[in-house]
Amino acid sequence: MNQAIETFIAQVKFNKDGLVTAIAQEQTTGEVLMLAWQNEQSLRLTLDKMEMVYYSRSRQKLWHKGETSGHTQKVHEISLDCDGDAILAKVTQNDGIACHTGRKSCFYRSFSSEQGIKENAPVIKNPDSIYG
Amino acid sequence: MNQAIETFIAQVKFNKDGLVTAIAQEQTTGEVLMLAWQNEQSLRLTLDKMEMVYYSRSRQKLWHKGETSGHTQKVHEISLDCDGDAILAKVTQNDGIACHTGRKSCFYRSFSSEQGIKENAPVIKNPDSIYG
Repeated sequence: MNQAIETFIAQVKFNKDGLVTAIAQEQTTGEVLMLAWQNEQSLRLTLDKMEMVYYSRSRQKLWHKGETSGHTQKVHEISLDCDGDAILAKVTQNDGIACHTGRKSCFYRSFSSEQGIKENAPVIKNPDSIYG
Repeated sequence: MNQAIETFIAQVKFNKDGLVTAIAQEQTTGEVLMLAWQNEQSLRLTLDKMEMVYYSRSRQKLWHKGETSGHTQKVHEISLDCDGDAILAKVTQNDGIACHTGRKSCFYRSFSSEQGIKENAPVIKNPDSIYG
């Protein structure tokens, strides 16, 4: 048991489903790459490996980011917000692609006062070639 | 009714409680300031005013950020993530204080491999003088 990790985790307020939101932000540029969820085990693994491990709500299991795509996220810093229910991770995104659509960031659709919604970022890599 | 706003909102996947996570990020520096929640009405008001309106889960009502503190958030850009359940807002933070503790960002506690957790940012303004 790593006492520093346990001390940090003790401050986290997991919700009734045992989850906390986790934001991944690119360390160098500050770009927000994605938002997902972590349970206690995935946060512990993240702090231990310093590589992002989420909890997939749809698949109901641990999700080591990049396990299929290779798009792992090396962690430089992990912070917790004032009320303890949100995590912020500063990361280096392997291959520069966080989104399953093959884009850098998952936040690739912006509000447009003309069109309502519009894409703001290109597909870097075809998802078919990422996931086979 | 603003058609652009309704077109955007139609893409948002609110959870079973009618909420979506919303990240506020400082436009100029990229610093992540806070994470909170929005319901449909608060997102509509946000897009209409271009000023952040959240939904307070604890108080169960609309929360126009800064209504008490004066620490409003002017919105420059609003984006939606790939699965439609997270909002990213690039904002200008009035007075440079987003957190109710009087700090710039709510993410002021970081993991420390020595201490477990440590504060990474100063209190800019005493909360007593913010909230009276």
